[in-house]
Amino acid sequence: MLSKNQRKQILQLSQKKQRLANGLFVAEGEKVVRELMNSSWVYESLYSTDPSFHTNAEMIRMEEMKQLTHFKTPSPVLGVFKMPPRKEILNESISIVLDGISDPGNLGTLIRLCDWFGLSELICSQTTVDCFNPKAIQASMGSIVRVHCQYVSDLAQTLKDLNKPIYGATARGNSLYDATLPKKASFVFGSESHGISDKLTALLDEELAIPYFKLGENRAESLNVATAGAIFLSEIFRPS
Amino acid sequence: MLSKNQRKQILQLSQKKQRLANGLFVAEGEKVVRELMNSSWVYESLYSTDPSFHTNAEMIRMEEMKQLTHFKTPSPVLGVFKMPPRKEILNESISIVLDGISDPGNLGTLIRLCDWFGLSELICSQTTVDCFNPKAIQASMGSIVRVHCQYVSDLAQTLKDLNKPIYGATARGNSLYDATLPKKASFVFGSESHGISDKLTALLDEELAIPYFKLGENRAESLNVATAGAIFLSEIFRPS
Repeated sequence: MLSKNQRKQILQLSQKKQRLANGLFVAEGEKVVRELMNSSWVYESLYSTDPSFHTNAEMIRMEEMKQLTHFKTPSPVLGVFKMPPRKEILNESISIVLDGISDPGNLGTLIRLCDWFGLSELICSQTTVDCFNPKAIQASMGSIVRVHCQYVSDLAQTLKDLNKPIYGATARGNSLYDATLPKKASFVFGSESHGISDKLTALLDEELAIPYFKLGENRAESLNVATAGAIFLSEIFRPS
Repeated sequence: MLSKNQRKQILQLSQKKQRLANGLFVAEGEKVVRELMNSSWVYESLYSTDPSFHTNAEMIRMEEMKQLTHFKTPSPVLGVFKMPPRKEILNESISIVLDGISDPGNLGTLIRLCDWFGLSELICSQTTVDCFNPKAIQASMGSIVRVHCQYVSDLAQTLKDLNKPIYGATARGNSLYDATLPKKASFVFGSESHGISDKLTALLDEELAIPYFKLGENRAESLNVATAGAIFLSEIFRPS
C-alpha cells in the first residue's frame, strides 16, 4: 500500500528542479529498470505490480501504479534511482552535440544510438531537455547508463575547447553523402523547431544535410532529429 | 461547448474497430491537422482552443480538449477526418514491408521516413498497428497523406507477388554496409520484440544487420525499428 507521502515524492520527480534537489530520478518499465539495476547505479526504491519482479520491490496495485506513472499506459515496474556522479568531459574522437533538443523521446533515442555506435558521451546545451526526464530514460532503453550526458553551461566555448572540426546538421547544408568526414569531429544537432542557434552556427566549419530524395514541394518537410541523428551516425561510422 | 455525444464519438475513435465502423479517424496538433487539410483528405469536424485557427473549427476550452486528447499533453487543435479510399498496390522499385510493428510512434516515424526518401507506399501485415492510430498520425507529421499504408491479409503471398529480392533486417544478418543492394527489392522489418515471423524469414533472400560498433556485451542490445529503418533507407538510397 502506497502512502500519500511516497506518491507525492515520486510524482514531484517529474520536475527537473525536484530531481536536482533530491538527487533522484524515476525509471519505468521492466527492461529499463533492470538495465539500471545491473549497472553501477543505485536504486532508492522499487515498485512493482508483479510479485516475481524483485524481493526488494514494494508490491503495489495497478491502480496505484496509474497514479505514479509518467506515461499514459503504466508499466508493471517503477524504480527511483540516485543520480550518478558527474564526469569530466572525455572528448572522444567523435562528439555528438545537442543544442536545444526539447523532446525527451528524441533525446533518449539519441542516447541509445550513441551507445550503439560506441560513444560514451553526449554533449548537451542547458536548453536541451534533461536526460533524467522519465521519457528520456524510457527511450534510452538503459543506454543512459553507458552514455554520459554532459550538460555544459557555455556550449560555444565547449565546442572550441574540444578542438575538432565542427559540423552542423542543417536543412540547407551540403550533402552528407558527398562529405569526406575526418576521424575526429564534432557534430551539432539543433532544436526540432529552431535548428542550431546563431551563436553556434557561426562556429561551424561546414553545414551538412541529408538530401531530399523526392523532387517538388510535396514531401516531408523534415526528418525528426532522432532519425536524422541515426543517419548521421551511420554515415560517420560506416566503413567507406 | 462540447456535447457529451461529440465527446463520446471522438473518444471512441481511439479504437481501430470504431475507426473502421465509422470511416473516421482523429488527428491532433496544428501542423499535422493543417497538412491533412491541405491534402485531398476531407475533415468532418475541427476543434480548436485558438479562435484564429480556422473559421470552421468549433471553439472549445482547454479543459474540454483535455477530455478529447489521446496524448498526455493536449495540443490546441484536433480534427476528425474521413478515412481516404484504399488504393491498389503500386509495387515501387523499393518496398518497405512491416511485419508486426506494434508501436504507433515507430510506425508514424517510418511513414515520415518513407516520404522523405520518396516512397509512396508502405506495406504492412495485419499485425502491424493501425496507421490511423492517433499516435501514428502524429508521428507521421502529415506524411501519412503521401505514403499509403497497405495492410495486406497474406504478407508472405504479397512478398512473393512483388517479385523482387527480399531482404530482412535482423540482428544476426550480414553487414548492411557490405551488401550490394539491387535497384529493386523488398526490405522487411519485424516486430520490436519478436523480429520477423518464421513464415517470412523462410522467404528472405538475405538477412542484413546494422553491425555493432562496440565490442563486448556492454552496449545497446538493439536499435528501435524506426532508427534502424532510417539507417536502412539511407543505405538503400545514398549514392554509392
